Amino acid sequence: MISSRKNPSFRRLRDAIRHHEDEIVLEGPKAIHDAVARGWTPLMVAVDRSGLTLPGKVQTVHLDPSLFAELTDTATSQGMVGLFRRFETPLEEMVRSAGVLVVLDGVQDPGNVGTILRLAAAFDASGVILTEGSADPFGPKAIRASAGTVLHVATCRASRRELLAALQRHNIELWAATTDGQPATLPADRIAITFGSEGKGIDPQLLEGARLVSIPMSNRVESLNVAAAAAVLLSRSYDRRRGTFSAEGPKKEKRNAG
Amino acid sequence: MISSRKNPSFRRLRDAIRHHEDEIVLEGPKAIHDAVARGWTPLMVAVDRSGLTLPGKVQTVHLDPSLFAELTDTATSQGMVGLFRRFETPLEEMVRSAGVLVVLDGVQDPGNVGTILRLAAAFDASGVILTEGSADPFGPKAIRASAGTVLHVATCRASRRELLAALQRHNIELWAATTDGQPATLPADRIAITFGSEGKGIDPQLLEGARLVSIPMSNRVESLNVAAAAAVLLSRSYDRRRGTFSAEGPKKEKRNAG
Repeated sequence: MISSRKNPSFRRLRDAIRHHEDEIVLEGPKAIHDAVARGWTPLMVAVDRSGLTLPGKVQTVHLDPSLFAELTDTATSQGMVGLFRRFETPLEEMVRSAGVLVVLDGVQDPGNVGTILRLAAAFDASGVILTEGSADPFGPKAIRASAGTVLHVATCRASRRELLAALQRHNIELWAATTDGQPATLPADRIAITFGSEGKGIDPQLLEGARLVSIPMSNRVESLNVAAAAAVLLSRSYDRRRGTFSAEGPKKEKRNAG
Repeated sequence: MISSRKNPSFRRLRDAIRHHEDEIVLEGPKAIHDAVARGWTPLMVAVDRSGLTLPGKVQTVHLDPSLFAELTDTATSQGMVGLFRRFETPLEEMVRSAGVLVVLDGVQDPGNVGTILRLAAAFDASGVILTEGSADPFGPKAIRASAGTVLHVATCRASRRELLAALQRHNIELWAATTDGQPATLPADRIAITFGSEGKGIDPQLLEGARLVSIPMSNRVESLNVAAAAAVLLSRSYDRRRGTFSAEGPKKEKRNAG
């Protein structure tokens, strides 16, 4: 059992949690098992007690509980953290094959970024593109809010300029979720839906060429939280692609036919 | 200017922030102005510098900036906090006149509770009922996540037993948002939609007599965040009441006619 702060495994984990540059940390047996089941190989798994095991031949290091507690919140990690290599999908690749893309334009709150990653997975978006000023989708708060989906959703960072050029090259229609637009039926395919930060909204550079879509709501509030807006529009887009709701009411959906 | 920790105004504000029993604290000029504009009278408003004023004849106390900083996060409060009386709508009253009610069954995370209050306001729900184990909608985190809407949405706490009896008395149909249900078109009116905690789901006592509704989604994720699920279902219910989307596509909505 490792009980020294100078141990290289401990230091590597601690640095990954603090700086999350090339590596990311997933917390909790469930998130780690899910990632392994989907084919990700952890660089390292640390546990705070023996008895916690992983499927396959993943090597685990055993940390003294007090050291482990320095790394992570026990309630979230439940005695297990895993170190994985962070992975971004190249912009070109993501846009070329896009169905519905999500663009986060300067969304600074990592909780919102993580919640939207989870929504992108839930509603089968092709990927999430983060422009200048957005929170790191691989930061600990975003990973936590993503409920472990961060590794299953294609993400990349791109400047607004690069993004616009790529969308144009591949003929993807740019939409912007705003409070000034009209309710609109989004095309089922080959679109990018942009969400801005709560304070500043969407940058004019992206707004200019975009079609606007807004969510019908009461004027008791000025706007929705950005993750709530994404939930509404991505769910609606998913229903439309799957034909879940028709004029006659809902179809019966085979939830496990996926 | 008040600069002593023993000052009764300072202590009253501090206690309201810490314990939030009978009084609640709104942070920031915008939230306080909105509340005043809607007819709420603050019990007290504290500012950290002169020059910040409120419409009408609200009395403000001027705190030394270092004392003010002990009370609240400066970025959120922007130099102004207001003390208001907390206000719950009686259960009977809320249920009697209900259109669409939101029930939060043991939703512990105050951020989710606040976000759902904001959604209830955005999508014209009649009110939010919180059962045993749900976070206090008037706690500081919930108030912040509600973006100041906490005073504009009818809320009450009730036990599951009281709730079920009241719904039955007034013939309100109980629905439960679960991952086991089918997609369903919710009735436009006279319903209560229940959301459970992420860990435990909805209590069997409520589930038993409820009709189930689920949100169609990919099986890449097991469930949505509870606030995201509420966004999808409340938005859909609002669209249906307002007839925003028909089989032919969206109607043009007068956003300011509401």
